[in-house]
Amino acid sequence: MYNFRTDLASERRDIYQKANKLENEIDGIESEKEEIDENIKVERVKITNENGEKAIGKPVGNYITIDIKKLKIAQEEEIEKAAQTLSNELRNIIDTHIDKQGEILVVGLGNIYVTPDSLGPKVINDIEVTRHVIKYLPQYVEEGTRMVSAISPGVLGTTGIETVEILKGIVDNIKPKLVIVIDALASRSIERISSTVQISDTGIVPGAGVGNTRSEISENSLGIPVVAIGIPTVVETAVLVNDSLDLFIQKLQDEAKSNDYLNKLKEEDNYEEIKQALLPQDYNLIVTPKEIDDLIENMTEIVAQGINNSV
Amino acid sequence: MYNFRTDLASERRDIYQKANKLENEIDGIESEKEEIDENIKVERVKITNENGEKAIGKPVGNYITIDIKKLKIAQEEEIEKAAQTLSNELRNIIDTHIDKQGEILVVGLGNIYVTPDSLGPKVINDIEVTRHVIKYLPQYVEEGTRMVSAISPGVLGTTGIETVEILKGIVDNIKPKLVIVIDALASRSIERISSTVQISDTGIVPGAGVGNTRSEISENSLGIPVVAIGIPTVVETAVLVNDSLDLFIQKLQDEAKSNDYLNKLKEEDNYEEIKQALLPQDYNLIVTPKEIDDLIENMTEIVAQGINNSV
Amino acid sequence: MYNFRTDLASERRDIYQKANKLENEIDGIESEKEEIDENIKVERVKITNENGEKAIGKPVGNYITIDIKKLKIAQEEEIEKAAQTLSNELRNIIDTHIDKQGEILVVGLGNIYVTPDSLGPKVINDIEVTRHVIKYLPQYVEEGTRMVSAISPGVLGTTGIETVEILKGIVDNIKPKLVIVIDALASRSIERISSTVQISDTGIVPGAGVGNTRSEISENSLGIPVVAIGIPTVVETAVLVNDSLDLFIQKLQDEAKSNDYLNKLKEEDNYEEIKQALLPQDYNLIVTPKEIDDLIENMTEIVAQGINNSV
Amino acid sequence: MYNFRTDLASERRDIYQKANKLENEIDGIESEKEEIDENIKVERVKITNENGEKAIGKPVGNYITIDIKKLKIAQEEEIEKAAQTLSNELRNIIDTHIDKQGEILVVGLGNIYVTPDSLGPKVINDIEVTRHVIKYLPQYVEEGTRMVSAISPGVLGTTGIETVEILKGIVDNIKPKLVIVIDALASRSIERISSTVQISDTGIVPGAGVGNTRSEISENSLGIPVVAIGIPTVVETAVLVNDSLDLFIQKLQDEAKSNDYLNKLKEEDNYEEIKQALLPQDYNLIVTPKEIDDLIENMTEIVAQGINNSV
Repeated sequence: MYNFRTDLASERRDIYQKANKLENEIDGIESEKEEIDENIKVERVKITNENGEKAIGKPVGNYITIDIKKLKIAQEEEIEKAAQTLSNELRNIIDTHIDKQGEILVVGLGNIYVTPDSLGPKVINDIEVTRHVIKYLPQYVEEGTRMVSAISPGVLGTTGIETVEILKGIVDNIKPKLVIVIDALASRSIERISSTVQISDTGIVPGAGVGNTRSEISENSLGIPVVAIGIPTVVETAVLVNDSLDLFIQKLQDEAKSNDYLNKLKEEDNYEEIKQALLPQDYNLIVTPKEIDDLIENMTEIVAQGINNSV
Repeated sequence: MYNFRTDLASERRDIYQKANKLENEIDGIESEKEEIDENIKVERVKITNENGEKAIGKPVGNYITIDIKKLKIAQEEEIEKAAQTLSNELRNIIDTHIDKQGEILVVGLGNIYVTPDSLGPKVINDIEVTRHVIKYLPQYVEEGTRMVSAISPGVLGTTGIETVEILKGIVDNIKPKLVIVIDALASRSIERISSTVQISDTGIVPGAGVGNTRSEISENSLGIPVVAIGIPTVVETAVLVNDSLDLFIQKLQDEAKSNDYLNKLKEEDNYEEIKQALLPQDYNLIVTPKEIDDLIENMTEIVAQGINNSV
Repeated sequence: MYNFRTDLASERRDIYQKANKLENEIDGIESEKEEIDENIKVERVKITNENGEKAIGKPVGNYITIDIKKLKIAQEEEIEKAAQTLSNELRNIIDTHIDKQGEILVVGLGNIYVTPDSLGPKVINDIEVTRHVIKYLPQYVEEGTRMVSAISPGVLGTTGIETVEILKGIVDNIKPKLVIVIDALASRSIERISSTVQISDTGIVPGAGVGNTRSEISENSLGIPVVAIGIPTVVETAVLVNDSLDLFIQKLQDEAKSNDYLNKLKEEDNYEEIKQALLPQDYNLIVTPKEIDDLIENMTEIVAQGINNSV
Repeated sequence: MYNFRTDLASERRDIYQKANKLENEIDGIESEKEEIDENIKVERVKITNENGEKAIGKPVGNYITIDIKKLKIAQEEEIEKAAQTLSNELRNIIDTHIDKQGEILVVGLGNIYVTPDSLGPKVINDIEVTRHVIKYLPQYVEEGTRMVSAISPGVLGTTGIETVEILKGIVDNIKPKLVIVIDALASRSIERISSTVQISDTGIVPGAGVGNTRSEISENSLGIPVVAIGIPTVVETAVLVNDSLDLFIQKLQDEAKSNDYLNKLKEEDNYEEIKQALLPQDYNLIVTPKEIDDLIENMTEIVAQGINNSV
């Protein structure tokens, strides 16, 4: 398998097609794009069989990417439109797995005290939970209301417990039919930071890429479908440099100042080499945009509204 | 049983003795007092048999009250001394239940977004957890280190799930030997607000007094011993008024301006009457001192240090 | 002069009328009431001459009280209506002092780190300032836009500087035509806590009642009109007890259990006596409702929107 | 003058010496280095005459750089040592300008709501101010105590007022003898982020480099000496890329995979070219380390303690 270095099914599909010089869709992969408005775009990728799985290294399932431009300066109206888009996609994906009244547990991963990692806990604070009202005061809710509960389990470094162990215990005890997990991710490309929402129904691995699988949060580990909402909020310096190097060489080419070796560098993915150059100096920082507080605030509103309107 | 209207075993014992005109300790109840310094006092009450249980309506077990005066303006040195006192009491009580290596789960109840209710979650952020290090990187810890994990499960209004349901699931899954629960309480007397720490080993009922028992967090519900650390941070207006009324009548008596009826009022507990007078006007607010942010900060340090040094 | 123990001109007028058994308006005082909806009421009091000044101990000027019921649980729509009401009153009062383009400086008093005192600084963060844009990028604003600037000067305990000294320096230097000051107040009655907004155009004295006047923020000290927006967010225990005692005795009267002495107590204002009874025990706490975080959040939105829409 | 692209006098001196192949100190520039321990280093540069000024484009004055390694994971002891180092340097520099009782105003620049820009306001909250106590309660302070006041004036985008205008007003009104300004800076090199403290006595220009000088905070604008404490907390992507490109080419050289053109690239400063390549794609983000919350917390303690111990 290629080292795709991206979690996005749509990006992996592109890479695979380019590498194999394919012009048509890969067998086992279907996709469609939709432009909601000039700032919001949606791409839906569906992996339908084992061939698709093998090609891009992702299990059979749905993968939806919502791109939101200029989120940093988004006004109320644009935030609502983004929330509505998220809501529509989420409702579709939930409906393929459970019926209208199937109980849902919403899980916000992350650490409230680390700004770029605080999205999950903040969303949980804004989720409209109904489970306790339906159980203890059913007269106050409309008949047919779906049971929704929510939890922010903390992170391994603060709890000492793998998140999946916490969730396994809760799921076994309260028995929801589906879990929605919200997670702040590391971005694999400079342009995705805090502007992309990824929805998938095949679960997630917190801290993925570190090479452990014991912490997978998925139907395998929890026994019920897991819909993941992932938002890239941080990026490695090596990723920034790799992306920027291409732009820099492009500029040198435009100015006819490049050479064969540089052209070759641009063709290649130099991420691993750059990382190896930065690591010995402790320069491979994980960074986040200066405006992260505002970005998290806007994203929290989009994701919480998106979930509240869809469940 | 009397309506003791206090959770403190020591206060209940006093009320029972006074009401029954007893001069000696009640059969089934032992107690001792210690003055750590001019600002810190400890009282340890032990209920040893069924007679003691019946007398004051608390199950057999240990009940320790630490009073800390002037916490609002406490400096580093006094905070350390209070933490040390808590630590000593806590260690003794833990040692009566499990051995030195028995795994402990620390649970911080409360809502991080409601200042007077944020103590539990804030303490959890400062607990030194070891469970994950011992499991995955045992070479980095001394042999014999106790496994400690920690969780802040949120509140029913935010999660939709009874706290005990969340904990039951986690305890069943990770199997600790003892649970420590931290909880911000409603105070039953004006002078205890944010100046008392109560430790007991008989568990707690969140929102106690509302008349439900489904949510008890105790050995009954979890199957392992539960040590509770409770700190009063809020108080009902009716409690403030009842306590103040006594002081006011006392002053009238001192000035020879009282009368029989007032004297009788002072003898009685007028809490219930006052509450009934305030409720129709929506005047029975739950209140907290203006300095609650500082109080919570100081208490968080005391409780987190107290736990870290004792486990 | 009476010890009115309230800053509200409308309450002082009532007390004066009752004490002097007046049935008509006092010479030199005009007033009118308006009911915006079932939850929002406005009363406008105008002191027009020296006789009015003397009667209720307030300088000639406008005093407007907006009462908002059930703010704790207010939804978006009610918050907007309250903001609109504030906005209308504020616009009228501003228009009596300066013209449509007269520059305004908005000042948020208080301490961001003390929740019940954080309203002022939080409002400042949401004020739409225009002064710098008009000065440096005039092409980006409509012609005729009013210059608005904003500052949160901190509190004496944190800065070591009287607020009026800070403001005097700034006003002398940037020369606005009018100052709006936002201040969290101590409430003089239990029912006003976090449900009343007071607007006046005669300035304020931070920490008023402590008997100093050196810190007055008014046209006297700053040389330009000062519109004050005050919101009660805390209350003394002695005030709670005094108000509650009346309700309690009322209940005893209703149950025919009162007596002459109690009836007399109810007629009198016992605040000072109660305070003297509580002080020796350190029981006269300043308290705030448990839900203060949410109240401040809602009030911040009302006041910030109210100002943004009126200037 | 060179485009030094660094504010550090020590770095500019190095660049000038290298460019002019000088082996000795430049006339008009003196310097000395001190290694406090393995993690903390100090370099003191003094510009003594016009020749020194011209060489490195900085006015006559003192420039001290304190480097603190591994701040992210610093423990209490290391933080105290760093604070002590800052304190010593600061005391020396203050003593060269005013006498032991000369009043000082501490100014914390920045925005409390933007994490990487919140250092200044947070430090102000921890400064031990004495001015009000000396003025109103002199019996509570030792004779000879220095008057200290503190203010956090906000940022232009929130206040609409240039910071220097606010400070000018306050300084004219309360007349301190010296100002200390704390400012979070953009770093000019990847390794300085959140690990360097710069002290100088020649003032600062907020948002320096944008080409305006109207906002200079210095003896020129305020009329009294200005000691600046600057801490780099953010960095441009173009700076990260420029620094990283050198490391990357170095690695290629080590592996004998480089070529003449790359070697030349490494010799040159490509910052400007890289920036021009990134800007059209909106890729030149200003970023901050993921751990910025902890870094700011540690730095706040170092700077506040450093100031409190030196004034």
